[in-house]
Amino acid sequence: MTTLAPLTEHYTPEARAQAESELFDLLRIPSVSADPAHVDDMGRAAEFLRAKLSSLGFTARTEATAGHPVVYAEHLKAPGKPTVLIYGHYDVQPEAPLEKWETPPFEPTVRGGRVYARGATDDKGQAYAHIRGVELLSQGQADSSTLPLNVKFLLEGEEEVGSANLEPYIRQHQEALKADAIIISDGSRFAPDVPTVTYGLRGLSYVEVHVTGANRDLHSGSYGGAAPNPINMLANIISRLKDDQGRVTIPGFYDGVDELTDTERAMWAKLPHDDAAFAASIGAAALPGEAGYSTLERLWARPTLDVNGIWGGYQGEGSKTVIASTAGAKISMRLVPGQDPERITRLIQEYVPTIAPEGAQVEVRALHGGQPVLIDLGNPYVQAAGRALEHVHGVAPMFTRGGGSIPIVSAFRELLHAPVVLLDFGLNEDAPHSPNESFALSDYHNGVLTSARMLQEIASGQEA
Amino acid sequence: MTTLAPLTEHYTPEARAQAESELFDLLRIPSVSADPAHVDDMGRAAEFLRAKLSSLGFTARTEATAGHPVVYAEHLKAPGKPTVLIYGHYDVQPEAPLEKWETPPFEPTVRGGRVYARGATDDKGQAYAHIRGVELLSQGQADSSTLPLNVKFLLEGEEEVGSANLEPYIRQHQEALKADAIIISDGSRFAPDVPTVTYGLRGLSYVEVHVTGANRDLHSGSYGGAAPNPINMLANIISRLKDDQGRVTIPGFYDGVDELTDTERAMWAKLPHDDAAFAASIGAAALPGEAGYSTLERLWARPTLDVNGIWGGYQGEGSKTVIASTAGAKISMRLVPGQDPERITRLIQEYVPTIAPEGAQVEVRALHGGQPVLIDLGNPYVQAAGRALEHVHGVAPMFTRGGGSIPIVSAFRELLHAPVVLLDFGLNEDAPHSPNESFALSDYHNGVLTSARMLQEIASGQEA
Repeated sequence: MTTLAPLTEHYTPEARAQAESELFDLLRIPSVSADPAHVDDMGRAAEFLRAKLSSLGFTARTEATAGHPVVYAEHLKAPGKPTVLIYGHYDVQPEAPLEKWETPPFEPTVRGGRVYARGATDDKGQAYAHIRGVELLSQGQADSSTLPLNVKFLLEGEEEVGSANLEPYIRQHQEALKADAIIISDGSRFAPDVPTVTYGLRGLSYVEVHVTGANRDLHSGSYGGAAPNPINMLANIISRLKDDQGRVTIPGFYDGVDELTDTERAMWAKLPHDDAAFAASIGAAALPGEAGYSTLERLWARPTLDVNGIWGGYQGEGSKTVIASTAGAKISMRLVPGQDPERITRLIQEYVPTIAPEGAQVEVRALHGGQPVLIDLGNPYVQAAGRALEHVHGVAPMFTRGGGSIPIVSAFRELLHAPVVLLDFGLNEDAPHSPNESFALSDYHNGVLTSARMLQEIASGQEA
Repeated sequence: MTTLAPLTEHYTPEARAQAESELFDLLRIPSVSADPAHVDDMGRAAEFLRAKLSSLGFTARTEATAGHPVVYAEHLKAPGKPTVLIYGHYDVQPEAPLEKWETPPFEPTVRGGRVYARGATDDKGQAYAHIRGVELLSQGQADSSTLPLNVKFLLEGEEEVGSANLEPYIRQHQEALKADAIIISDGSRFAPDVPTVTYGLRGLSYVEVHVTGANRDLHSGSYGGAAPNPINMLANIISRLKDDQGRVTIPGFYDGVDELTDTERAMWAKLPHDDAAFAASIGAAALPGEAGYSTLERLWARPTLDVNGIWGGYQGEGSKTVIASTAGAKISMRLVPGQDPERITRLIQEYVPTIAPEGAQVEVRALHGGQPVLIDLGNPYVQAAGRALEHVHGVAPMFTRGGGSIPIVSAFRELLHAPVVLLDFGLNEDAPHSPNESFALSDYHNGVLTSARMLQEIASGQEA
């Protein structure tokens, strides 16, 4: 095992101040992708990043898309060495409701060791940590115009509005974007004192169920007791989609689902999680779910089914004695590795008619799907990220999964055929998407150090 | 058995033409109670009726209420004879949508033996049939200024807007309104060729159920599998309120419910009803309901439970991965004799929490209630109505019930302690509340004859 050059000594108080000052300049640009009034700010933010990467020796350009521009930059001066692609986004959520911000969303303000601003953690702060990480890495080189590996940056401007133009962009630039690993820091890690690598995400199958009874609304006095009631029938259908053990009843639903390994269960059992505190944090009286699994197991490694919306009949004030003609519900299933969204969608489309009560005319429309993701923990890039975290934090990192989906992760995996490393520097308490979004400056600087160290680890090609 | 004086001979073609012409004059007055623009028309319609009743020897007045006036008239010149109170209403539904009317709603037009106009059947035509019935009855008297019994008319102007001022009026005039029987013709009979007396109405208990899971909306990726989902839980609650035989599962719900008598079942089995035609008329694939009862039995004599409205989570376009904090539903139960609305409301309020899934915080709010009504078929006034129908139509009448509620019926029974006779001259095909409302002139004239004959029967005090 070769010793990696120490980097911390280069990350001086002056360098830290400079890293903060640059990030704050970026945070001052109100790059709200959803608001057409900010189209010029989008261009300014993209140019800010392009110029910075250019100053670090990258060949950098902003590239037009059908929407906001993509910043693409590459530093390919280490032949024979690995190539990593670092993804991030420079657009931010709208600031509304403005009145709930303690300080203006686009005037970064430091309080209690945190910088408060829209985009502080999501994703300007986390993305910029990698840029400063690369800069720190170069400062550790004998020739600071070099890097010990090849690095590409892909920074988009439409993550907060659905990334509609990113997949076409990747498809079009498949060759240029080729990499051995893709690094993404755009989420929240498990807990403040727990350095974390995320190695799994759930997928999604989202459908809409429509139930029709009679061909028009009926008076419940004249027809109640004989007319099919689509709301009662829809409730019956929903209630039959899960059994009293919280298991989804759709035949074949669990086929191919990988059971958790003992290693994973043991690892997660060590995480600082407390059911009572978790329930209290959302004001819930209980945490119902699939029997036989812990809460974290249910959130990260088990599929589930939730009704996301329901409607039918009279929703106004007072009492209206109507039997509605139709009712509907939006139903989504979170999927885990081994489950294919298209297959699961087909299964529920086949199953619902078989459990529909007599008199129900049902239709199950497919709305949306997303592949689950599981990253091999033995993957050398994941391992490199883990060693970097341990080096910076002085404690062994935890390997966790996420309950949600990051659609772009699947696109990367499918189009670039490279492993993805999900290395989150932020926390849920940073309040991304909410008023008073913030980022702990210590998390930012640890992000810079972790990024640099991880790239060093990857360049050295060491295995743990 | 004394022979009743023949009345038909007095109902000459001239008298019929006059009865039509008077009704048409009343139909020309756009007495729309819901529309403040028609307040003068309300007064005109009330005065029209007062003047007519006055011309028949009634002491008649229009009386102010907090809303539209009541027309009250009495003819009390038959000491020792029974007193009947005839209820009706002179207000009508709004005419909208005007463009769907083939001829203007307030220009009565005769086509195919029917008069088309707003209020033709509901309730001007049916109420006026009684006024002309009384006139016909007086023409059969030796002294046409007399009547063989005492008659009171109570004609309100707010039935189509909820009769808010009628119960206070009745309460205030309890003594003046005293009667041996109350006659109401404000509904639809079963079928064209079936003269009918209605002897039962269902009651109502209407509640709103609210289910809360977490204290805020949650992301289904981050929380799906552990957070309580109020929509799933509400669906489970609803699905448990009825069993797979269509029976309501609330403990005590059926306590005190009178079983149908064999006579009733046999009587209703003879009615011209066909399940397939009934289902086709509402475009329903089936007529689900309580096992062991025919459709008419389920509609008229069995209690039931229907969800009238449901809401929760995301109801817009596309897919939103939210776990809602709350969900709600409006649930009503149609009640039959033996069931008290307040008791049933209490039962469901007690029951729902016991079947709520773990993690559900539930609240069941009482919204509305109404007493069921059952009129003793042996009641001499009901019998008199039946004999009158048989006399006019030449066929034995049918005794049916209605599935809905007529709130004012309970008020009459409770405040005036008199039996109510529900004698409907109209038909559903008259399209009350809809464009092109009409009333068959033959039904109108049969109404006049039936009313006169019934009053004659009551005056004679004969039993069948």
